[in-house]
Amino acid sequence: MTVLILTCEEDVTADMVVVHLNATGVPVVRLDPADLTGGVALSGEFVHGAFRGHLSSGGRLVSIDGLRSIWVRRPGVPAARAAAPSAWLTEEASQALYGMLRGCGARWMNHPDAARRARHKPWQLRLAQRCGLPVPATLITTFPQAAREFADRYPDLVVKPVSGAHPQDPPRAVPTSRVAPDTDFSAVAFGPTLLQRRVAKRADIRLTVVGERMLAARKAVAEDADPDAVDVRFAPSTAPWCPVEVPPRVAAAVRAYVSDAELAYGAFDFAEDADGMWWFLECNQSGQFGFVEVDTGQPIALSVAEWLARPRPQPRARVNGADSAVR
Amino acid sequence: MTVLILTCEEDVTADMVVVHLNATGVPVVRLDPADLTGGVALSGEFVHGAFRGHLSSGGRLVSIDGLRSIWVRRPGVPAARAAAPSAWLTEEASQALYGMLRGCGARWMNHPDAARRARHKPWQLRLAQRCGLPVPATLITTFPQAAREFADRYPDLVVKPVSGAHPQDPPRAVPTSRVAPDTDFSAVAFGPTLLQRRVAKRADIRLTVVGERMLAARKAVAEDADPDAVDVRFAPSTAPWCPVEVPPRVAAAVRAYVSDAELAYGAFDFAEDADGMWWFLECNQSGQFGFVEVDTGQPIALSVAEWLARPRPQPRARVNGADSAVR
Repeated sequence: MTVLILTCEEDVTADMVVVHLNATGVPVVRLDPADLTGGVALSGEFVHGAFRGHLSSGGRLVSIDGLRSIWVRRPGVPAARAAAPSAWLTEEASQALYGMLRGCGARWMNHPDAARRARHKPWQLRLAQRCGLPVPATLITTFPQAAREFADRYPDLVVKPVSGAHPQDPPRAVPTSRVAPDTDFSAVAFGPTLLQRRVAKRADIRLTVVGERMLAARKAVAEDADPDAVDVRFAPSTAPWCPVEVPPRVAAAVRAYVSDAELAYGAFDFAEDADGMWWFLECNQSGQFGFVEVDTGQPIALSVAEWLARPRPQPRARVNGADSAVR
Repeated sequence: MTVLILTCEEDVTADMVVVHLNATGVPVVRLDPADLTGGVALSGEFVHGAFRGHLSSGGRLVSIDGLRSIWVRRPGVPAARAAAPSAWLTEEASQALYGMLRGCGARWMNHPDAARRARHKPWQLRLAQRCGLPVPATLITTFPQAAREFADRYPDLVVKPVSGAHPQDPPRAVPTSRVAPDTDFSAVAFGPTLLQRRVAKRADIRLTVVGERMLAARKAVAEDADPDAVDVRFAPSTAPWCPVEVPPRVAAAVRAYVSDAELAYGAFDFAEDADGMWWFLECNQSGQFGFVEVDTGQPIALSVAEWLARPRPQPRARVNGADSAVR
């Protein structure tokens, strides 16, 4: 049974995982949906109540029902590199490829539906609350008056995008920034704005979840750090990421989160305050892990490889003849 | 508790349902996400482990946790009619609106994830097979040789899009058409092609599922009909749609299909052959029903209204404090 990795050609993180998979002898096929219908081809036949499907990439043919797991890493837009690309061809190629893969019973990291749902920040915040993670007071609004009243209650605020990166090509990360006192909130009426109480942090925490495994890393904030540098991705820092234990209460809450979110992989960002409390900021279902592994030596790529290499679950029999692996 | 209908302004089908809802006295808010951030505003506050959210449309304010059901009819692209529309504003507005609604515990017709998954034709065919519905022999391929061999085995074929409508503005329906004998399949290499054995049909069947309710209609094919006119949407016909009983085996299989697909609404198309067998062609999770209701007098709009008006389920207690309505 084969591991299928959907990603673009230049993906060092995928390379790290493939090295481990190769060491275990598990067959791997790596494929970029953008290469449909050039280097990548597909075929599926529905005859007499049965399905037979195949993918071909770089001359290698793999049975769709012979896939044990599918890692959706950084796949390109389907058929984007076809000889005559078009929105119509992309739609046809996407439905054909993902439509066949969705029915195949392989384990997903992460399933496209779970991945899509998990990107919604308001949904993340609410799920984190329900799972018992501390969430800094947050407002998402298009009402200027609501923003003003929130700023009165929480005078030290940051503003960040509701979605993720700005959808230009290539996507641009929008930094979280501090809200100045006496900010005029009237422009809030023109677009949803996310305001959040700033956590006076003494460290950033990155907790990477791979299946049941949790690997946490901590990056201390320098004593003389500029309090306006709230976004660890953009803050100047010489401190490395260091491995750190996950407090048991946090571990239980994170376990509930990924279970409810149906995620096999998630990269959680927390801010650690002066009391040692980990405040939930977000969970990125496709967050990078290479930079943490380089600093900490934690075996994240190995954990991903081990998860992907596991045998796939046996379909459970169902009264109506459908099996549990339909999703 | 309020029913929320997400649709564009001119939607006669939604009007039909609203008439029935108004008659029952259930509060209804109708809203087009395209009107964010003009006539539509939103606000959600995550403070001390709790969420308080509101939507406002045309001056009416509704609590997000006070929604009993959400009907995703024909919603516009979020913020498409904003004063300064942009891909970034659409993304922010979409994540804010759907991110809050996704967490609220209301019943969905249909849930966005279920709706998206249900559009994949290969997934539909496989689920239909698993549920025991007869599916005409079908091939989806980018291999010309596979297409040729399939045409040798099944000489009487139709070709149809793998996805749905062509994504131009407005979207254009692509008719299913008959494949001529001695067709040259070499162009299959440039885009996934769906070939299906043509069912020599004596009638088209439209089976509309609303919750547990099934309403089937039948449109007879004229004896002298052109066998090349395979697509009922484009075939000239004077025969009306007439109500028809659902055979028990079909009913059981369709029930399994919508249950596995997690759909509250689905419009199934079947072709009835000379033996009276219903062959599954597709299930459109957002299929129109007005034309069937006009011909048959079947109470489809009323069924939708009754489903939407039902009280929402009580959240089940969970060990970790999250409830079953998180999705």
